[in-house]
Amino acid sequence: MSHEAPEFDLVIRHGHVLTMNAGNATFDDGFLGVRDGRIAVVGPDAGQPPYKAAREIDATGCAVLPGMVNAHSHLAMAQFRGIADDVTLDEFVSRLTTEEAKVLTRDTVRHGAASASAESILAGTTAALDMYWFDEETVAAAAPYGLRIVTGPTFANFANPDPRSFEEILQDAEARLAAHPPGATAAPVLMPHSTYALSRRQLQDVAALAERYACRVHVHASESPKEVADVRQAHGASPIQVLEQTGLLGAGTVVAHAVVIDDADIETLAATGTSVAHCPWSNLKLACGVAPAGRLLAAGVTVALGTDSAASSNGLDVWSVVRLAATLHKGISGDPRLITAREAVELATVHGARALRLDGEIGTLETGKRATLQVVDLSRPHFAGCQDVWSALAYSARPSDVRDVVVDGVERVLAGAFVGTQ
Amino acid sequence: MSHEAPEFDLVIRHGHVLTMNAGNATFDDGFLGVRDGRIAVVGPDAGQPPYKAAREIDATGCAVLPGMVNAHSHLAMAQFRGIADDVTLDEFVSRLTTEEAKVLTRDTVRHGAASASAESILAGTTAALDMYWFDEETVAAAAPYGLRIVTGPTFANFANPDPRSFEEILQDAEARLAAHPPGATAAPVLMPHSTYALSRRQLQDVAALAERYACRVHVHASESPKEVADVRQAHGASPIQVLEQTGLLGAGTVVAHAVVIDDADIETLAATGTSVAHCPWSNLKLACGVAPAGRLLAAGVTVALGTDSAASSNGLDVWSVVRLAATLHKGISGDPRLITAREAVELATVHGARALRLDGEIGTLETGKRATLQVVDLSRPHFAGCQDVWSALAYSARPSDVRDVVVDGVERVLAGAFVGTQ
Repeated sequence: MSHEAPEFDLVIRHGHVLTMNAGNATFDDGFLGVRDGRIAVVGPDAGQPPYKAAREIDATGCAVLPGMVNAHSHLAMAQFRGIADDVTLDEFVSRLTTEEAKVLTRDTVRHGAASASAESILAGTTAALDMYWFDEETVAAAAPYGLRIVTGPTFANFANPDPRSFEEILQDAEARLAAHPPGATAAPVLMPHSTYALSRRQLQDVAALAERYACRVHVHASESPKEVADVRQAHGASPIQVLEQTGLLGAGTVVAHAVVIDDADIETLAATGTSVAHCPWSNLKLACGVAPAGRLLAAGVTVALGTDSAASSNGLDVWSVVRLAATLHKGISGDPRLITAREAVELATVHGARALRLDGEIGTLETGKRATLQVVDLSRPHFAGCQDVWSALAYSARPSDVRDVVVDGVERVLAGAFVGTQ
Repeated sequence: MSHEAPEFDLVIRHGHVLTMNAGNATFDDGFLGVRDGRIAVVGPDAGQPPYKAAREIDATGCAVLPGMVNAHSHLAMAQFRGIADDVTLDEFVSRLTTEEAKVLTRDTVRHGAASASAESILAGTTAALDMYWFDEETVAAAAPYGLRIVTGPTFANFANPDPRSFEEILQDAEARLAAHPPGATAAPVLMPHSTYALSRRQLQDVAALAERYACRVHVHASESPKEVADVRQAHGASPIQVLEQTGLLGAGTVVAHAVVIDDADIETLAATGTSVAHCPWSNLKLACGVAPAGRLLAAGVTVALGTDSAASSNGLDVWSVVRLAATLHKGISGDPRLITAREAVELATVHGARALRLDGEIGTLETGKRATLQVVDLSRPHFAGCQDVWSALAYSARPSDVRDVVVDGVERVLAGAFVGTQ
C-alpha cells in the first residue's frame, strides 16, 4: 500500500507550526495531517507526498500551536462578572455568596458555563480544569463548544447549592470513580475546596479516596495573606503543609494560586510533584499578591496558567494570562530574563496539559496526540516588525488573533467565528 | 429658525454614552450629534427633536466614550518589536541602539510610524504624545490614519540619527515655536530625553525656551533603579529633583515612567502640577518595577497612561494598559479598592487629555469639544454577565472590541476595519 496517497480528514498547511515537543521542533512552512481526531503527520510542508484531504486549512501567515489549557476556572461564574470589583476581599466574598445563594441552580450553572465556553473556545482555550457546583452541568454546557472540561465533585462546608452532606458527596464520588480504571483521565477530579473549608479529617477522607482510585485532585491553597494566617492559626501549619499532612499533594494534584508561600512550601510542592495553577490577574485584582512563579519553576514545579473566575479576573482568556506571566515576574523580581516568551507559552500549553495529566493526549503537536490546536493570525498591524514567533505570541497576541480552533480534529472556530458542533 | 430640524454631519445613536465630564453624566440610550468635527449635541436619545444627518452610526449594545490618549509612545519603534525581549536592560539598550544606528532614516521612521498608527487607531487610540527622531515624519505618517500626534524635537547627547548639534536643534525648535502663539496646542512639545542624556546646562536651556513660549515638555525620568542611582551620583539629586532644579517641571510637563520615586519626588510633581505618563507594561517587562500610581493620584498628580515603545512593551494598545493599571496596583499595594474601573478608564481619557493640555478639545464627550471618540462593542461573549459598563471597559474590553473610531467628526474605523482617509 506504500504507493497509495495518504488520506486525511483535515490538513493544515503553510502555518508556522510550533510542535512544542521536547526538542521544540518548529516548521516555518508546516504540514499537519489529521486522521480520526489525532495528528497523523506533522512536519515541513516541503517533501510531503501527494495526499487526499476531506478538509484543508491554509494557515499562511499564522502560527499553529496547541490549544490553551486553563488550569483553574469556575466557568459558570461568568454570570457574576463585574458584581464585586474594586472592593475588599470580605466584601467580594459577601457579594458573591449572596448572589450565588440567590440564583444558583443546575440551570443557571449550565447557562453560565455555556457563555463561558463560547468565550473560552473563541480565545483558543481547548481544555479547562474547572471547579464548581453541579460539575456535570458545566461538562454538558461546554460539550457543544468542543471545550474539554476536566472536573469533578467539590467538597466544602460553607453554604452552597449542593444539598448533599460531605459523606454523600464522597460516596457519590466513589461511585463515579469506580466507573473508570484507576488513573483514567476521563475519571472525575476530586475537588476539596481548601484547607479552610474542610476539616483535617475530611481532607484525609478525600485524600484516601483519591489514593484508592489514583485520581486527580484540585484544591485552592495559599491565595491570600489572610487565608494563610487563619490556617496557620487553626492548624499550626501553612495550607500547603496541611495539604501535605493530609495526603492531598502529589503528581495528580493541582493547587490553585500558591501566592503566599515560603521556601518550605515550594520545597514540598516540588518534592511531591504537585502542580500549581498560577492565576496572576485574579491574584492582583483581589490584592492577594504575586505568586513566586519564577521560584516555583526553578524548583522544578509544573506551573500552569489559570484565569480563576470571571468574578475575580473578569476574563477567561489565557492569552492575557500568558502576557501577564511573561511580564509581571520580571518587574517584581528585578530580573528581565525571568519567564521568557517561549516559557510563558509553554506554561499555557505543555505545563497545562501536564498538570491535568493530559500530556499524553494534548499540549503538544506530535504524531498520535489529539489534534487539539489553534491557528493564530500573526499578520495584523499589532505584530508589525516582530520577527520572533514566541515574542509575537507571548507579548503581542490577543484572543482576537485566534483565527481557527480545532479540537480532536473537529473545527470549532474558523475565521474567528464559532462554527457549530458539526 | 427654531422650527427647522437641526442638521448634523454625523449622528451616533443608541449607544451607552459615557461623557466622562466632571459630573460623570452617562446616557443609557444616548444621542450624539456632530457638526463641523465637534460635538453639537450630547444627551439621551429620547426627546431629541427631528433632525437631518448626513451619516449615522447605530451604537446599540456599545459604549461610546472618548478615544484613548497614549501619553508616552515612540511609535516608529514598532519596527523594533521583539528584538530585545527577556534580556538585561544593558543588553536591551545595546541591541536597540545597534539596530537604530543600522536602519534609522527619515524613511524608516515614517514607515515604522505608519504601521504603529494603524495599530493605534484600530485599538481606539486617537492621540499620542510621541517622542522620537524626525518627529515631523511621525506626524506625516499618522495623519492619514487620523491619529493626532503631539510631538516635537528630541534633545539627547548620545549617538542618534539627528546630525544636528544640541544648539542647532534648540535654534530650530525656537523657530518652530515662534510660528505659534504662546501656549498653542498645535505648537511643538520640547523633548529633553532625560537627566542622564543632557547636561544640567542643556536642561536649563530647554527649560528657558519652554518658559519663553509657554510650551509643553516631555521627558523620561526615574524609570529604573540604575538610572536613579546614576543620576543621584552625578547630580546629588534624584531625576525628578534635577528636573525641578533646572526648571523643567510644571503644568505643561509630562514625565514618562516615574517608577523609582520617593515621597519628596511625589510632592514635587504634585506641587509643580507636572503630569506622569504611567507605562506599566514596559516598566514590568524591563524589570524596572511598578510606579506608585495610587500614591501619585492621592497626591493630586495627573496620571495618564502610556505604552512606551513596542520594543519594550510589544504592544501599542492602551486598553491593555487600562486593565493592567486597574489590576496591578491592587495586587502590589494590598488594597483592592485602589484605582477603580472608572478611574482607570479616566486615566486613559480625561487624564491623558489633561496631561497633553488638550482637555479643552478632547478627553470627554461634551458640547463644543472635538468629536473624537470610540464605539466599543459590549455584546461579545467575554462580556457576558457583566452589568457594569466601567467594569466591562476596564477589565474585560480588548482592542478588538473597538468597533468604530471617529476623530474630529470623521469616521476612521468602522466595524473594526480602517476605512481610509475620507
